[in-house]
Amino acid sequence: MDISRRRYGGRTELKSPSSDVGFHANRVIERCRQLARITDVAGETTRTFLSPAARQCMETVKSWMEAAGLVVYIDAVGNLRGLYEATQTGAPRLMIGSHLDTVPNAGAFDGVLGVMLGLALIEMLDGKRLPYAIELVGFSEEEGVRFGTPFIGSRALVGRIDDQLLSTTDAEGTSVHQAIANFGISAELSSAALDEQAKAYLEFHIEQGPVLESEGLALGIVEAIVGQTRGEMRFVGSANHAGTTPMHLRHDALAAAAQWIGEVERYALETKGLVATVGRLGVLPGAGNVIAGEVTASLDVRHANDAIRTSSVYHLAAEAERIAHGRGLSAEWRILMEQRAVAMDAHLTKMAEAAVIDAEAAPFRMMSGAGHDAMVIAERLPSAMIFLRSPGGLSHHPDEAVRQEDVACALAAGLAFLRKFDTTAVMN
Amino acid sequence: MDISRRRYGGRTELKSPSSDVGFHANRVIERCRQLARITDVAGETTRTFLSPAARQCMETVKSWMEAAGLVVYIDAVGNLRGLYEATQTGAPRLMIGSHLDTVPNAGAFDGVLGVMLGLALIEMLDGKRLPYAIELVGFSEEEGVRFGTPFIGSRALVGRIDDQLLSTTDAEGTSVHQAIANFGISAELSSAALDEQAKAYLEFHIEQGPVLESEGLALGIVEAIVGQTRGEMRFVGSANHAGTTPMHLRHDALAAAAQWIGEVERYALETKGLVATVGRLGVLPGAGNVIAGEVTASLDVRHANDAIRTSSVYHLAAEAERIAHGRGLSAEWRILMEQRAVAMDAHLTKMAEAAVIDAEAAPFRMMSGAGHDAMVIAERLPSAMIFLRSPGGLSHHPDEAVRQEDVACALAAGLAFLRKFDTTAVMN
Repeated sequence: MDISRRRYGGRTELKSPSSDVGFHANRVIERCRQLARITDVAGETTRTFLSPAARQCMETVKSWMEAAGLVVYIDAVGNLRGLYEATQTGAPRLMIGSHLDTVPNAGAFDGVLGVMLGLALIEMLDGKRLPYAIELVGFSEEEGVRFGTPFIGSRALVGRIDDQLLSTTDAEGTSVHQAIANFGISAELSSAALDEQAKAYLEFHIEQGPVLESEGLALGIVEAIVGQTRGEMRFVGSANHAGTTPMHLRHDALAAAAQWIGEVERYALETKGLVATVGRLGVLPGAGNVIAGEVTASLDVRHANDAIRTSSVYHLAAEAERIAHGRGLSAEWRILMEQRAVAMDAHLTKMAEAAVIDAEAAPFRMMSGAGHDAMVIAERLPSAMIFLRSPGGLSHHPDEAVRQEDVACALAAGLAFLRKFDTTAVMN
Repeated sequence: MDISRRRYGGRTELKSPSSDVGFHANRVIERCRQLARITDVAGETTRTFLSPAARQCMETVKSWMEAAGLVVYIDAVGNLRGLYEATQTGAPRLMIGSHLDTVPNAGAFDGVLGVMLGLALIEMLDGKRLPYAIELVGFSEEEGVRFGTPFIGSRALVGRIDDQLLSTTDAEGTSVHQAIANFGISAELSSAALDEQAKAYLEFHIEQGPVLESEGLALGIVEAIVGQTRGEMRFVGSANHAGTTPMHLRHDALAAAAQWIGEVERYALETKGLVATVGRLGVLPGAGNVIAGEVTASLDVRHANDAIRTSSVYHLAAEAERIAHGRGLSAEWRILMEQRAVAMDAHLTKMAEAAVIDAEAAPFRMMSGAGHDAMVIAERLPSAMIFLRSPGGLSHHPDEAVRQEDVACALAAGLAFLRKFDTTAVMN
């Protein structure tokens, strides 16, 4: 389709809507800041699944959505969903969204920004209807804070809420099922699921990392969300007196773990696209004058290629054994979680790339090292993601930010995407 | 003097008193095991300063000392002191001792063994008086468990109990001063101090390390108690998302600390006589999926030569800064404690060495990596220490042990030491 000739914001062409885009970019940022003040914990931004602040946030966003001409409802797990009708009823539907919940003491942009960008794009249509409908989704739960399980919102859309998840309880002993009922929601779970009209999903999100900033770029086109292995390496040596045990007679579990951490870092630096992190270390007995007898180290390994990730984990576990063996210690590896990489849709990603070029930004392709709703929705719909630069690479922190010009660039790319979006192509 | 012709245990010569020494060695071990059952915590061996178990232990040992002909009293800080008179009153005095308190859930031999060996040596004199008196001391406090300050017992003998120490409180808020009064002791502190007759100090102690076992030796002659520096190295980098931060853009405080721990180990292995230990590590934020932003690592460095210890600490602190700098982090070094090395008396140590040779053991000289009462008494008296092999290098553990033949060897060496002890030489 071609929506470039429609009139909005006093300009006749979509080609260079810089001042209009600037106005909307400012409003997107202001709205994110406004929503950041809606919190369960005074003085910070903390908004967990179906909390009082979540309700207030939903009501605020709902009023903005309705003012933009969307038909809005809250679905069976509390997702805020608004439909911007097409020229015809029963038309195919493009979904745009992200999440409205936050981590504790969060910044203003993680999740919320993607919803506000979607809303601004619809507002920029200025009432003009397209041959396809747009569904704007503000997912109720992505961070996994309240129930320790992330993606409750998007999982409902792909039909992955099971009884086990529903009976999971929060710190107060309230189950997911009860929390939904307490919120006043009585709809059948199945009513939240995607229907035949939903054809594709687009998500904007802050990068939450330093790559775009280090490249000097506003936007990134996500090719895949990396797969992840999380586990625990346990080194067992002998706790001994730090004064009376000569160096050559030690079986120091911390010295072994330190050698291994060095190897983890070295291997990841040498393996393109791999990130491997030891972020938690338990040292026993943990006294300054006692040689460590036991160390438990977390290991988090991510790569876009599952085979590379798996072989890396295998190599690092073998390295731990080799290091332990050479020191007369034992090493034991335990996998806690494995998640396959999720590729974004190739065709839709190409369309996002072309849209980024139209917005006069560099078409930089990258991996997402973090999980996002798009990863879940991709199980059912062709999905694409566009990242916005994170100043300082900062996220999950009150100082989390976005640049106004990057938001404007994302809006320009979003408008270009809307112009290019071709439901028949996606349906093939 | 020459005590080799006196008669004891049915034998006429001290030269090869193997069966008699064997009997006494067995009794030493039995007594240590018996005292290990006197405890403040049922099911383990825990006997802290002036506790109910400490009183019961003192009473038991006091009865054995009195049976051996000692005049016994409890001094102003609860040390159990027994005098075995010389042939003449006012004669010079050799002190033999160690401590009677224990760490929590201790073994049976740390400290107690040295007191029981001293007692057995006097018993083996079978009432024969020597030209010098022997004072047997069971120190009331060495481990520092109750008040967090070690050596309260021996410090009283060298006049190093000040008001600050007296007002230190235990976990229940009782001060040292009050604990002494509660125990029923009313003597003036100064009355515990060493007097002019005290000429030398000899201490037997388990090694608490693996050196003698690894050398296949029963006894070790301690040349010095090493000096010690304890401190804390703090690495500050940036906490970041483990998935979204590429390896080359990280400032990982744990990776830096791990590199440094490797350097600490390498440097200590290459520096003769040096031990350096990182035994405690605090990692912030300490989550498996977050790159560590801050790590605090303990460092414990010991060497018999204070200059080598000091320059080693300087080198390791500089290494931390070099490593941190190369990674865009900062490192900050803080000294928590410094203690100079304490040499044993050269002449008395030579005498101990000759005594060990007389006992047909190898005269192996070594350092003590741990602190002992001898370190404190050495401030005022020529002091010597003899270590007994620790099976498995184990100490501060219920499985702590000694071999019967090593105890017998120590007794033979002790008798030889008594034969050789020449007060005039020590007095020079």
